[in-house]
Amino acid sequence: MNRLFHVPLSPFCRKVRLSLAEKKVEVELVEERYWERNPEFLRRNPAGKVPILKIDGQLLTESAAICEYLEEKHPEPALLPRDPEGRYEVRRLVSWFDDKFHNEVTSNLLYERVNKKVMGAGYPESKNVKAGAKAIKYHLDYMGWLLDQRRWLAGNELSLADFAAAAHLSSLDYIRDVDWNRNANVRDWYAKIKSRPAFRSILADQIPGFPQPAHYADLDF
Amino acid sequence: MNRLFHVPLSPFCRKVRLSLAEKKVEVELVEERYWERNPEFLRRNPAGKVPILKIDGQLLTESAAICEYLEEKHPEPALLPRDPEGRYEVRRLVSWFDDKFHNEVTSNLLYERVNKKVMGAGYPESKNVKAGAKAIKYHLDYMGWLLDQRRWLAGNELSLADFAAAAHLSSLDYIRDVDWNRNANVRDWYAKIKSRPAFRSILADQIPGFPQPAHYADLDF
Ligand SMILES: N[C@@H](CCC(=O)N[C@@H](CS)C(=O)NCC(=O)O)C(=O)O
Ligand SMILES: N[C@@H](CCC(=O)N[C@@H](CS)C(=O)NCC(=O)O)C(=O)O
Repeated sequence: MNRLFHVPLSPFCRKVRLSLAEKKVEVELVEERYWERNPEFLRRNPAGKVPILKIDGQLLTESAAICEYLEEKHPEPALLPRDPEGRYEVRRLVSWFDDKFHNEVTSNLLYERVNKKVMGAGYPESKNVKAGAKAIKYHLDYMGWLLDQRRWLAGNELSLADFAAAAHLSSLDYIRDVDWNRNANVRDWYAKIKSRPAFRSILADQIPGFPQPAHYADLDF
Repeated sequence: MNRLFHVPLSPFCRKVRLSLAEKKVEVELVEERYWERNPEFLRRNPAGKVPILKIDGQLLTESAAICEYLEEKHPEPALLPRDPEGRYEVRRLVSWFDDKFHNEVTSNLLYERVNKKVMGAGYPESKNVKAGAKAIKYHLDYMGWLLDQRRWLAGNELSLADFAAAAHLSSLDYIRDVDWNRNANVRDWYAKIKSRPAFRSILADQIPGFPQPAHYADLDF
């Protein structure tokens, strides 16, 4: 049986979960409290990070490498277009979310508010939370601008870029940090992606100590 | 003419330079002092980062997406193997260096010692420099362990993983932060990669205020 060692609100894990679900690759989810650094976990991934995917007799790490591998082994439905220009744009946006959005928004909001509490690592720094709250506006505007020109973030087909973005935004939505009224394009895009069967498992997540808000799983939020 | 907007010691830029040179794609290098945030630069890349590659009438950003694009448009010589397992391992290691090594080592050493000075952003934090100096040992050991089993980092052929690693290590070597006596495998690997024609431009870099150390460009270091 395939297994994904993960943390429910990790955007990198969610991106992999969405890819697996879209491609109908079944997987058992195993929560890994990576901050406890148990030796079995470090043996599985010397980098000490989740996600870790056990598949085809191997242990795979690094979400970008995992998603490319899934794309090559399970090409249908495709999450990358066929032309190099289209593939480039998807990969650029995946990096945009996993590098820039992650550093400017996710770490300032989610990691401050949730991870610190879960790990017993103190209280949120209000300076960081403020910086994150400011930066997310600019990112939502950028997404809105992209969606003015395209049906999905990287072009006219759903792609890994949408899953990368939705992975970050859904985790932030769980802690009510996304203002869905800011941009109508972004709201419509999220409504579309939220209603996909691949999203179900993510909408069912429950984090002890952080009750799921009512709008989170509501398709008509 | 193709152009690469870059910063000489940036590991992300160096990885792209190495890929371009290995594939014999000619490019004019243009230095971009990104911290001055000039409007023309931000128009080229709203993410405000280098590298930016002008090629085929487009402006490409995000080094991982750029390298995949180059691989697809200029497949020879190949920097990714053909089988999904081999490709996975290359991509995993590229992410290892550009995420983990970058955060644990490069930002603690290079950014503290060089970037802060160049940008006029104060003095190195000795706590960070110490953490970087400690972490690099563990990374060199990990590389040595990989090279015990393989000729190159990701397998028996040279790949993007070697260029990602060499991009970080060469920048750190410029500021004398690599102990080449720590691991003989790593030293032999670096000697091999350093002697490739693709490495020449990198060995010719000169950073004002940081004279190039004698061993840096020496193939017999
Ligand atoms: N580049 C990695 C990043 C994964 C990552 O940073 N995961 C976090 C959880 S969201 C983690 O495990 N952090 C533990 C650590 O960095 O020690 C990927 O894309 O898979
Ligand atoms: N994910 C990007 C990272 C590039 C990056 O961080 N570049 C640095 C220079 S080494 C930069 O331009 N930083 C400016 C900034 O982050 O504002 C890539 O792989 O191209």
